Amino acid sequence: MQTLWDHRYAQRMQRIKASAIRELLKLTEQPDVISFAGGLPAPEVFPIEEFKEACIRVLNEQGDFALQYGSTEGYLPLREMIARHTSRYGIQISAENVMITSGSQQALDLIGKVFINRGDRILVESPTYLGALQAWNTYGAEYVTVRTDDDGMVTEDIEGALRAGPKFIYVLPNFQNPMGVTISLERREQLVEMADRYGVPIVEDDPYGQLRFEGKHLPAVEVIDARTRVQNGHYTGNVIYLSTFSKILAPGIRLAWIIAPPEVIRKLVLAKQGTDLHTATFNQVVAYEVGRHGFLDQHVKKICQVYKERRDVMLEALEEHMPEGVTWTHPQGGLFLWLRLPEQCDATELFPAAVKNKVAYVPGESFHPNGGGKNTMRLNFSYPTPEKINEGIARLGKMLKEEICANQKIFQGA
Amino acid sequence: MQTLWDHRYAQRMQRIKASAIRELLKLTEQPDVISFAGGLPAPEVFPIEEFKEACIRVLNEQGDFALQYGSTEGYLPLREMIARHTSRYGIQISAENVMITSGSQQALDLIGKVFINRGDRILVESPTYLGALQAWNTYGAEYVTVRTDDDGMVTEDIEGALRAGPKFIYVLPNFQNPMGVTISLERREQLVEMADRYGVPIVEDDPYGQLRFEGKHLPAVEVIDARTRVQNGHYTGNVIYLSTFSKILAPGIRLAWIIAPPEVIRKLVLAKQGTDLHTATFNQVVAYEVGRHGFLDQHVKKICQVYKERRDVMLEALEEHMPEGVTWTHPQGGLFLWLRLPEQCDATELFPAAVKNKVAYVPGESFHPNGGGKNTMRLNFSYPTPEKINEGIARLGKMLKEEICANQKIFQGA
Repeated sequence: MQTLWDHRYAQRMQRIKASAIRELLKLTEQPDVISFAGGLPAPEVFPIEEFKEACIRVLNEQGDFALQYGSTEGYLPLREMIARHTSRYGIQISAENVMITSGSQQALDLIGKVFINRGDRILVESPTYLGALQAWNTYGAEYVTVRTDDDGMVTEDIEGALRAGPKFIYVLPNFQNPMGVTISLERREQLVEMADRYGVPIVEDDPYGQLRFEGKHLPAVEVIDARTRVQNGHYTGNVIYLSTFSKILAPGIRLAWIIAPPEVIRKLVLAKQGTDLHTATFNQVVAYEVGRHGFLDQHVKKICQVYKERRDVMLEALEEHMPEGVTWTHPQGGLFLWLRLPEQCDATELFPAAVKNKVAYVPGESFHPNGGGKNTMRLNFSYPTPEKINEGIARLGKMLKEEICANQKIFQGA
Repeated sequence: MQTLWDHRYAQRMQRIKASAIRELLKLTEQPDVISFAGGLPAPEVFPIEEFKEACIRVLNEQGDFALQYGSTEGYLPLREMIARHTSRYGIQISAENVMITSGSQQALDLIGKVFINRGDRILVESPTYLGALQAWNTYGAEYVTVRTDDDGMVTEDIEGALRAGPKFIYVLPNFQNPMGVTISLERREQLVEMADRYGVPIVEDDPYGQLRFEGKHLPAVEVIDARTRVQNGHYTGNVIYLSTFSKILAPGIRLAWIIAPPEVIRKLVLAKQGTDLHTATFNQVVAYEVGRHGFLDQHVKKICQVYKERRDVMLEALEEHMPEGVTWTHPQGGLFLWLRLPEQCDATELFPAAVKNKVAYVPGESFHPNGGGKNTMRLNFSYPTPEKINEGIARLGKMLKEEICANQKIFQGA
């Protein structure tokens, strides 16, 4: 039945469509489907006991404060804890550089609100994080894309893209969602150098940086940029850096943070006031209590152990079950890897066959804002147990062998 | 120091200014100032023990679920609880009509995102809720205003305002923020009738409706509208209705809800996906556990007792201490009342004198989107204790007597 609201939607709603992925994923909710499609952390590593203790302590000792309205910037001790944590990685910042957000998705939304005019171009990796595209499409963003290979963003493409005059560069340097690849140190330095030459600032999205299973930690783009720019202990660089508690603590508390120059933080705070006033005080105080005595360091080690095992199981299963012509990335951390099928295959078209075989993935096309990637898919290894990973990859391999074989026959017959 | 972000702010940021109120309120953070300026619930009525029990139970029994990502619509049992609760007030809806938001401020932001194009006019009461203006200014809203008296929105003004072609009507029918006034039943019926005649839908913001100290509950605008519109048990009316747990449970958990026709809910869900993905699962499950066995009914009674006492103390103190020519509203519920000074007074100009006298309020001008209300102020009675209310009103009365007297001398001398 029609209501008076029907013809009153804003123009921007034409760019907000139900995500094709979400529609596909509804097919995978049957309990016998093994899904590599989600991006969920393993519930086995949620620190439930620590949460319980923190909730009790917070409500006993400062319930009046934790249940009351709070400041838009966020809970000061938590912001200070994040500043100290960040400083360990080589950049001296203070709480003034930190704002708490309701998940990183809100950080992306606020960046869109504060910086994007309709028609502005954003330089992104292709493929890139879908949530950023969803947030920024609302504000009328267009995209200039740069190729990504096993060493991350292909820097030789950046200069051409920068000449298109992007408002900013958006990059996920560590174990990128969706590909699982990491930008090499050399490319990070080239990126910062080129961004500086063209006068274009950078948004660095780093939800997984701490979840490194092997290899050496690489300095954040922010750290490389900041080497020449920190003044009086205040970060005044050209990078807005995002990270989150979703992958190192739990996503169900919706807590993330933005690090930026103080003037940028002030604008983001103004935008957040009208958007949700502030992030839940209770969650911030509880997260601070869970994290304050160094718990996160040991906890991250535990998460890495669990995820490394699952990645290894997935890599071995892929070796065993994938037909010839299929390749995949070897992530050194994070939650995802990326599968490339032979050129003629279309992962979206294959999806129903996968679900019929009781296995699911995300077709890679969705992550390419300007098209491409038809023959790719994203696989998540953090959520399913090792047994499920083995079985699921076997099912996927069987399906691909059948379908690729059928495809080739059609191809040869044409 | 300048960064590359400096000249890259979106045009809409020109309309997002630091709220004058927030700047003023910084002056009132000295501990010896008695502040009637905030809008905080009394922490004395936070159900801390119930929260603690619920947190423990949730983490013991469903920690894996409560700490994980959740659905954008919100936690189904909570949405069903809200639907049942709403149905008690005379409108049959189901969970399909309910979306959970991160506080009512987010509901206002999402309504702006989904419905407001730059230049769209919104019909509002003058004065109206400041947070709605903050949310919608970002989307380029303009305002058509309707006068408000002690019976709420003056309905004889509505028709003229509707002829300006507003996108929708925004109204706070119960114990309005900032005035504390309630729209009479007759005016509610006139409002619905006129909105229907001009084909303009309504956003009804009702954060305080349950906090009625005296008098009879009046049907929501939504209920009046729905009488002729509910089909097959689904609300398909022209009202989007907003309410929140902030005033009946605690604001620090940031939980509110939207009730709307299913098609509108679907659009709001799409907008919320890109905005913050979903509201904290943990908070939703805990709020459901706190509320599920009818706790809220008895708890609301307790809040009403506390707030009624504070309102009574404020009304008595006003009688005792205010100079002639000052009048005020007599709210039957809620958190605020509204003071009118003689015409020649300016509450913003008087503010420094008030702070000097160690008392604070919000000048009424801020709540008028198109100007006016210079001689008015908003006073909050929910947060300060009765003793503070008595003392604060005495200080305010003393200051006003001195200043009004001085003003009159200047006036007479001119």
